[in-house]
Formats: sequence, C-alpha cells, structure tokens
Amino acid sequence: MSGQQTTLGDRKYGILGTGALGGFYGAKLQKAGLDVHFLLRRDYEHVRQHGLIVESKDGDFTLPQVNAYNDVTKMPKCDVVVVALKTTQNHLLPQLLPPVVKENGVVLVLQNGLGVEEEVAQILGEVKVIGGLCFLCSNKVGLGHIRHLDYGHITLGEYLPAYSQAGITERMQQIADDFQSTGIGMDLAEDLLLARWKKLVWNIPYNGLSVILNASTNELMADTYSRTLVEQIMYEVKAGANSMGRIIPDSFIQTMLDYTVKMTPYRTSMKIDYDEHRPLEVEAIIGNPLRKAQSAGLDLPQISCLYHQLKFIDTRNQKEQKN
Amino acid sequence: MSGQQTTLGDRKYGILGTGALGGFYGAKLQKAGLDVHFLLRRDYEHVRQHGLIVESKDGDFTLPQVNAYNDVTKMPKCDVVVVALKTTQNHLLPQLLPPVVKENGVVLVLQNGLGVEEEVAQILGEVKVIGGLCFLCSNKVGLGHIRHLDYGHITLGEYLPAYSQAGITERMQQIADDFQSTGIGMDLAEDLLLARWKKLVWNIPYNGLSVILNASTNELMADTYSRTLVEQIMYEVKAGANSMGRIIPDSFIQTMLDYTVKMTPYRTSMKIDYDEHRPLEVEAIIGNPLRKAQSAGLDLPQISCLYHQLKFIDTRNQKEQKN
Repeated sequence: MSGQQTTLGDRKYGILGTGALGGFYGAKLQKAGLDVHFLLRRDYEHVRQHGLIVESKDGDFTLPQVNAYNDVTKMPKCDVVVVALKTTQNHLLPQLLPPVVKENGVVLVLQNGLGVEEEVAQILGEVKVIGGLCFLCSNKVGLGHIRHLDYGHITLGEYLPAYSQAGITERMQQIADDFQSTGIGMDLAEDLLLARWKKLVWNIPYNGLSVILNASTNELMADTYSRTLVEQIMYEVKAGANSMGRIIPDSFIQTMLDYTVKMTPYRTSMKIDYDEHRPLEVEAIIGNPLRKAQSAGLDLPQISCLYHQLKFIDTRNQKEQKN
Repeated sequence: MSGQQTTLGDRKYGILGTGALGGFYGAKLQKAGLDVHFLLRRDYEHVRQHGLIVESKDGDFTLPQVNAYNDVTKMPKCDVVVVALKTTQNHLLPQLLPPVVKENGVVLVLQNGLGVEEEVAQILGEVKVIGGLCFLCSNKVGLGHIRHLDYGHITLGEYLPAYSQAGITERMQQIADDFQSTGIGMDLAEDLLLARWKKLVWNIPYNGLSVILNASTNELMADTYSRTLVEQIMYEVKAGANSMGRIIPDSFIQTMLDYTVKMTPYRTSMKIDYDEHRPLEVEAIIGNPLRKAQSAGLDLPQISCLYHQLKFIDTRNQKEQKN
C-alpha cells in the first residue's frame, strides 16, 4: 500500500468520458465536495459555459460550473483517473491516460466486459489499476444533461498482473469511501476476474441476443426457446470462467435468470447503442472473454456464434449510419 | 423390385400441395403426358375452373384443365404420391397419405430437411418411400400461377429403415425417367441419407442466418465474420453427418462456399417464408438434424444456437402476422 495517505476529499478525480456514466458519477463526486476534472469532446463548449444537469431518481441537481477540458494535456495530474469511455473508444487510451495520471495514481476502469484493466496496465506500467462494475441505468438526454433512471452501485476489484486475486486493498477502500460519500452503494470484491466473469453471465446473453433478436429482456425470458438459449450461453460463460480458474456456481445462473424475469423490461446497453447506430461493445463484452477461454484451450461455440453474428450486425449498422 | 412392370406414362401421379414446387413439377409431368392429380386448398376453386399457368425460363405454358381436388378421399389411388407440402404442414400427412397411395405405390418426398421419409414410412408401413432433393427456384405468384425462375433438377434416393443405404433401385429409375421426359434433370443417389446431409451443408447456414441476420447469401459471403460463421456451421453439419456414419469431405464444404460466392444473390426459401409471415421450416431443416446428431451422442452447439434463435423469431413472426 502507498505511504501517501489521503483523507476523504483530498483526491483529485479525472473523468475521461463525460457521458451517461462518467457524467453521472463525476457530477455526484463534485456535488459531494471532491475536486473533479471532466474530459469532454462534443459537449465541451456547452458544459464549459453551462455546467452539468443531472436528473436523478435520487434527486435532481445542477452544477453550474465544472472543470471542463477538451484536451487531456491541459488537465491536472489526477489521483484517480476514471475511464468512463465506451470500450469502442479504447484505442484512444494510450494517448489519453499518460498525461493525466499522477505518479502513485490509480486508474479506475468503469467499463463493461473483460480485459481492459490489463490493457491499461500495459499502457501505464507501474500505475495501479482498479476495475469497477457499474450497475447503472442512465442516459445522456442532451448536451451536459444526464438522466439517471435506476440503480447506480459499483463493485470494485483491484487488478494484479494476469488477473491474480488482489484481495481488498486500502486504495479500493479509499475510492469506495469517496463514492459512498455521494450516496452511491459500493461493494468490494477480492477477485476482480471472478467479479467480471460473473457480470458476463448476464451481459453476454442479454446484450448479444437483445441485438441479434431485436428483443427486450422480458421478451427473451417469455419465449421458452430464447430462455433456454440464454441459459445455455450462461453455462458457456461459467465454463469460460472455469477455464481461467474461477468458479461460478450453478445457483448463480439460476439467480440471474430469476432476477431477470422479475426485473422491469430492460433495453440492454448494447441494444441502446445499436438503436442509436453507435458502435457496439462486441469486443470487450464478447470477443475478449471468447479469446481468453480459447487461449486457455476452451472453445465456447455458442458465444462464438453470437460474436460472429454481432460483428456482422455492427458493421452493417455503422454503414447504415453513414448512408 | 416389384413384379408389376410399368412403362413411361403408365404411372398415375398424385401431387399433395400444388404450390411453387408441387405445381411446377406436377404441371411439367401432365404436360409430358402423364396422368396427374392435384390436391389443392386455397387455389382449388380457381384451378378447377381455369387450370394452371406456368411461366418458366424453359418456356411458358398453360394447362387449361387439370384434375383438381380439395379432398384427398376423392382422389384416385396413385402409383406415385408426391409430397410437395411445406414441412410445416407435415402433421397432416397421417390423414392425407393413406387414402391416395396405391398398394405397391411409392411416396416421393420432395421436401427440405431431414427425417420426413422416416415419418412417412411410419405412417404407411410397407409402402416404398423415395426422397427427392429439389434444386428449384420457383414462386407462386397468383392463384394457380407459378413462376419458375431457375434450376429445377432433382436428386432421388430411396429410403430404407433407419436410412440404411438402398443403392439405385428400378423404382427410382422409373420415376427419374418420368421426370426426365419433361426435361427435368435427374440424379440418382445410392445413399439418401448422405445426399440429405450434403444438402444440409448449404441449407442450415444460409437458411438460418439469412433469417436471423436479415441478409441475402451475397451479404453473408461479403462479410468476413458471417462468412466464417457459415463455414463453422458447415463443419458442424459435416460432424452431424459423421455421427450417422456418413462422410462429407472438407472439399465439399469449400465447393459450397465458392459456389455461393459465385451464384446470383439469393433469397433463401426460409427468408421468403419469413418475409411472407409463413411458418418457417425450422424443425425439418434444423431441428431434425440437430436431434439426430444428439441421439448419436453428438452436440452441435452452433446449430443449436441457430435453432433456438429461429424458434423465437418464427413465433414472433407468426404473432405479427395475426396482429
């Protein structure tokens, strides 16, 4: 653990990607009194002049003034740099991260899928990387304008090389304290890789099939064939986790199925991206887990089927956007 | 072989299902001078009064008068009963077949997929069953009005219990002679089961993915991911054939891929059914081969994925029809 102790509020936060997710968490941190710096692209001019608006089921608020940047080299070095881009933008990370991460700083990856912490660690060398799994239902509805619909809690897990189990570190606890001071529920996971695979049990079948079959979660659960396919794919995810030495119990799969039947009909993040003609997070959510299992000698044929179908759909969807 | 010898033109043909396929072949047989009896449903009144019209790339022709029936019990017993329904209507076969098949008659199954000859043999006991694989591009464009666009040749193979190899029989040769007299190209296969699995190498990936991905054959071949998936699925079909003791060489798969790249962009029969909100032939083309392999102890996971996706899509497509 670092010898530099900091107390609540001392840490400077950098938010890379001020959209539905980064904008929401960043605004909450600033509202709680932390020093937050936002990187923006399209919304930069608007947010620089007018700040951020958050409509939230937990209470609306506005931040008339925020530290807005459109160039990472103009940002101060931050203690915690939050990667809140879509994974489809991760080819930018080698340019974005080095200028903004303080020595002894932490990168907090708030993204879907698998393998991003490893990529970040390769870019930055010795810097600590923490993964965060967000359970958040939130949209950007206008320039600098975020609508938080439901949920919001985050599970943190620290990355160690080759995803060895890191346990609960003081860094994780400090970041969790900062977020908790804003009212966001935080869990700490001893094993980031296990936490990521467990989230994939839900994310792979529902994100994938919602796009391929043009269906909401309740439609997928109401039909016996699609429900069976969801379950079969969940068991492939379990096998993938197992190929990397992580055990997901069968009971967890049943819990996910039951939970999804009971939840409000839900449009997955990949379906929203599809409907908006944005690039799909196929590689992070489906391609990376598939390749990790293949590297461990395990074929996941149904997930491979989804992967190839989604790559075809994504390419066509991007072309239709341009036409 | 039967002791009852018949010469060309002696055989009475019954056509069950006078649509794009049964109407085309039946009309060709009648035009060549054979005695043909057509079972119809929706088109019965019209065809009884006006006959059949065939527009064909091989020459248009009309049959102002045909033997039309809307009730199988009113048909004469036939030497060759051609099953030309969509397989989605095969639950009707136990009612339709027994009244119309002559003792020592033959049932000729001109349908897609796998397993129908076995079903017919179970209905009729000792009657001989021959399977026909049609390579036909034809549509019904109006009442009693068929448009033949391309191809037309048929591969025949005789069914023996448990699909043991039957070789070339005299019955097959006689039926082939009748069809050839109309100008239709005929091949005789020694092994019906092998011929059926070989056709499935094409039919499973292209029919399935054309519906799931809403794509034509050329779109599926132009994208590297969907093309790879087509090939992976073809190798699963090969494995399925192998589980029943039939060997499909890798070179056949490459030939099918190359052939599809070169062919005119093609809307598969399942895609046409989908677009017309008709029931999809999922069970005959995909479900039956899947279950045959499973019975032999082999899982075909990517074909299983397609099967479950198509069952979901088919149910929704039928509901949309009714709404």
